[in-house]
Amino acid sequence: MSASLVGSPILPEPTRSSRCHRKTSKTIMATCVDRCRTTDAATKLLSFDSHLDKSPYNNYMKPSRHPVSELVPCAPASQDSNGKEEIWMKMREEAQSEAEQEPVLANYYFVSILSHNSLESALANHLGNKLSTSSISSDTLSGVFLSVFTEDWEIRRDIRDDLRAVKERDPACISYVQCLLNFKGFLACQAHRVAHKLWSQSRKSLALLIQNRVSEVFAVDIHPGAKIGRGILLDHATGVVIGETAVIGNNVSILHNVTLGGTGKVSGDRHPKIGNGVLVGAGSNVLGNVKIGDGAKIGAGSVVLKEVPPRTTAVGNPAKLIGGKANPIKLDEIPSFNMDLTSFITEWSDYVI
Amino acid sequence: MSASLVGSPILPEPTRSSRCHRKTSKTIMATCVDRCRTTDAATKLLSFDSHLDKSPYNNYMKPSRHPVSELVPCAPASQDSNGKEEIWMKMREEAQSEAEQEPVLANYYFVSILSHNSLESALANHLGNKLSTSSISSDTLSGVFLSVFTEDWEIRRDIRDDLRAVKERDPACISYVQCLLNFKGFLACQAHRVAHKLWSQSRKSLALLIQNRVSEVFAVDIHPGAKIGRGILLDHATGVVIGETAVIGNNVSILHNVTLGGTGKVSGDRHPKIGNGVLVGAGSNVLGNVKIGDGAKIGAGSVVLKEVPPRTTAVGNPAKLIGGKANPIKLDEIPSFNMDLTSFITEWSDYVI
Amino acid sequence: MSASLVGSPILPEPTRSSRCHRKTSKTIMATCVDRCRTTDAATKLLSFDSHLDKSPYNNYMKPSRHPVSELVPCAPASQDSNGKEEIWMKMREEAQSEAEQEPVLANYYFVSILSHNSLESALANHLGNKLSTSSISSDTLSGVFLSVFTEDWEIRRDIRDDLRAVKERDPACISYVQCLLNFKGFLACQAHRVAHKLWSQSRKSLALLIQNRVSEVFAVDIHPGAKIGRGILLDHATGVVIGETAVIGNNVSILHNVTLGGTGKVSGDRHPKIGNGVLVGAGSNVLGNVKIGDGAKIGAGSVVLKEVPPRTTAVGNPAKLIGGKANPIKLDEIPSFNMDLTSFITEWSDYVI
Repeated sequence: MSASLVGSPILPEPTRSSRCHRKTSKTIMATCVDRCRTTDAATKLLSFDSHLDKSPYNNYMKPSRHPVSELVPCAPASQDSNGKEEIWMKMREEAQSEAEQEPVLANYYFVSILSHNSLESALANHLGNKLSTSSISSDTLSGVFLSVFTEDWEIRRDIRDDLRAVKERDPACISYVQCLLNFKGFLACQAHRVAHKLWSQSRKSLALLIQNRVSEVFAVDIHPGAKIGRGILLDHATGVVIGETAVIGNNVSILHNVTLGGTGKVSGDRHPKIGNGVLVGAGSNVLGNVKIGDGAKIGAGSVVLKEVPPRTTAVGNPAKLIGGKANPIKLDEIPSFNMDLTSFITEWSDYVI
Repeated sequence: MSASLVGSPILPEPTRSSRCHRKTSKTIMATCVDRCRTTDAATKLLSFDSHLDKSPYNNYMKPSRHPVSELVPCAPASQDSNGKEEIWMKMREEAQSEAEQEPVLANYYFVSILSHNSLESALANHLGNKLSTSSISSDTLSGVFLSVFTEDWEIRRDIRDDLRAVKERDPACISYVQCLLNFKGFLACQAHRVAHKLWSQSRKSLALLIQNRVSEVFAVDIHPGAKIGRGILLDHATGVVIGETAVIGNNVSILHNVTLGGTGKVSGDRHPKIGNGVLVGAGSNVLGNVKIGDGAKIGAGSVVLKEVPPRTTAVGNPAKLIGGKANPIKLDEIPSFNMDLTSFITEWSDYVI
Repeated sequence: MSASLVGSPILPEPTRSSRCHRKTSKTIMATCVDRCRTTDAATKLLSFDSHLDKSPYNNYMKPSRHPVSELVPCAPASQDSNGKEEIWMKMREEAQSEAEQEPVLANYYFVSILSHNSLESALANHLGNKLSTSSISSDTLSGVFLSVFTEDWEIRRDIRDDLRAVKERDPACISYVQCLLNFKGFLACQAHRVAHKLWSQSRKSLALLIQNRVSEVFAVDIHPGAKIGRGILLDHATGVVIGETAVIGNNVSILHNVTLGGTGKVSGDRHPKIGNGVLVGAGSNVLGNVKIGDGAKIGAGSVVLKEVPPRTTAVGNPAKLIGGKANPIKLDEIPSFNMDLTSFITEWSDYVI
């Protein structure tokens, strides 16, 4: 582990040393962020497959009815005419405005947002503060987060896609800066992206420490081995549990108290595979190595132990398909986008309240 | 935001400045607390309606069978012959006694309770300590809480009604001081009352920060827009999620892992309306703008997507009414008061274990 | 309360004072730990009965088909030829190895594990750090934990049985040191053991403070009155709620978001009694003073309000027995050991997804 990670400065700097699995040499972060922005649009349509290309899940994900193009975030990362990044500039404006309206928080906004020169720097610092303990300093953790953000352009892209997902789908999200500062689902997801990177580099103890701190601070327990796509909304997030061999596609919305859990004490592939555009309602348990097809919806409080076909709706305990197993009703819209959790009840034949 | 909130002293002082929506000038808190105690009994019967008077929920809440008088807390706030407040005096006695029995905690009881001259001061200090971070000091937060307590007599009344509700209904609550120090449902609820006040004053960023910290520290996520009555018991509280446009009546008991959630990504009125005296069992999901009638009971683990009539019991996933939809069994007692979560099983025809 | 608890050193020392319920005088901890290890194997088969001998649960627990011998941990506590304790030596080796692989965490492993001369010292220190606040120092809490560990050999044995249970049953647990440092279910359970001891000594305020801090930090709410056996796995742990009069046998595995809850507001015996070797799936609610028989399994998301016979599987909301009430299918294996949460679905006649 290079010394640069320990006590590394909060603001990005040249990264001169590499440890393992670092694919390319990088110069300075600003350059690197620019580079990823230019490649962003091009890679958007391809990255989902590459993300899952070693997963059994890949085979069944033939997006015949829901082409991936429907499932990419609506707006690509972009920069204004001065080359400044739009989402980070917007976030700074929001922070400035909120600080002016609420002087009690002026210093907080300065330290958390306005003193930073990039989204990555602000996020690394905020996560470091939230997850630090008396034994692990915020500087140490912030340094770890920033180092991974600096070396991995996919994570930097994913952060922005997640920010847009929250802003777009959650009517309670009034600004990007609120998402960054206060949405524990967003924060847990970004911490997981770093833990997953560390896990893939065999830095298991550090990855597991981050998992634990996220579980304690945000009540979100995601094993660092889990593979999670981009454009993810973990709404409210309390009580979410995602197991080691779970795979989650792109543009998925998961409510609180959802379990993507394993079964059995044997190691190996034992957790759910969630397709693109899936919506999982609050308090649902999806257990075992089962596939939830692209664009499917799992109603709140459901218990799902079997495959759910694409674009269908599974509800109840035990879960059944709306419209029946033989001829389930197919959804016209992407459920993770419209967040419609209740309209199916007119079709729910047992619903006799 | 007046400077008086930043670093304001823990013990109450004259409040000389006002920001917005401050209805009346106040002199010193002691006076103000006295005043609210004298008006307390008189306003008790009226306040529920005023609380909800702009809500669509108001129309259906015709307390024909369950007059509001049944649903007010059993004992009004009162003072002894020396003009001292009963509940705060009792709490100090308890703290004194517990400190003597457990010297390890003597300093803790002194700092948390015995050094304060009012319930509001102790509560503001305790919440400030619990919710502070490295970026937001406990003094700042305590100042915010105390300022709102000082300006809003309804919140001061609600705090006491909630204390009585916990003490009365939760057999695990052995004293008022335990409720104040250790019951995270009680603490989350009081923090929400302050966040809701700030939200109604358009101080959204501060309100959302409190929501976030309560969600992280207590695992209770209540949107500051939610309207919550008084005499509330949030038992255990972990995992409770209450959405922005939810309305909760008086004397409601809600167990842990309960969601009063929205549906759809469109803003607007999209969360449940919970009547007076309702009991909601652990792990239930109530979703959408549905009405739960006065004195109704929701069994543990239920999924409720439709209206539940007053004084009926809804159980299961999907929920159905005990006794059947056409002729549901009517409850004789107020379920939030007796906390009876299981006696209906003899009537639950499907219960075939 | 003896002064020795306040600011007592982290490393074990002679305990010269006793407070209440201290059964035997002890000399130094090393001796004491040795003593308990030699008696460990002998008491293993007997201790379950003594643990529960005042409970109504005791009568029905006739292990005719599942003799207790099946349910003790696979490996007894043991020491190597130098008299050093195996599990603690293994944990130190793991810490050494992980610290070398991850220099960022070297100091953390030193402070948390390598600087301690016993498992109890390391655990007491770690719990003290995790549960401390600005008002209650980590030294004070660590002193309380270490003092109880020192005086109670059963708790020292239970800690080791729980470590083995997690390592054996949870495929995500890669080492003992990971369990100690990062598994909040394990940490919550050990903190509860101390709180329960304090509760039994009528040190209620200290016990309730520990309960509260565990609920805030780990989102696990176990009333200090609850009786919990050994060889316990609380997997993921978020949202677990266990009530005051609950009793849990040995070798039980409980997933997250499980409630063993009460009913009614009257004090008295009102919570579930869980037999040996039981597995309770995520998100289940077991309510009231009901018995869950030895070796039974409760499926995820179940609502159980009635007795479940030994070695049967209850699933659903409301729960029913796999195979039917009259002739339920009997499990051949101990469900808490194999952690099989889904294989029954082929028998679940209603499962029509």
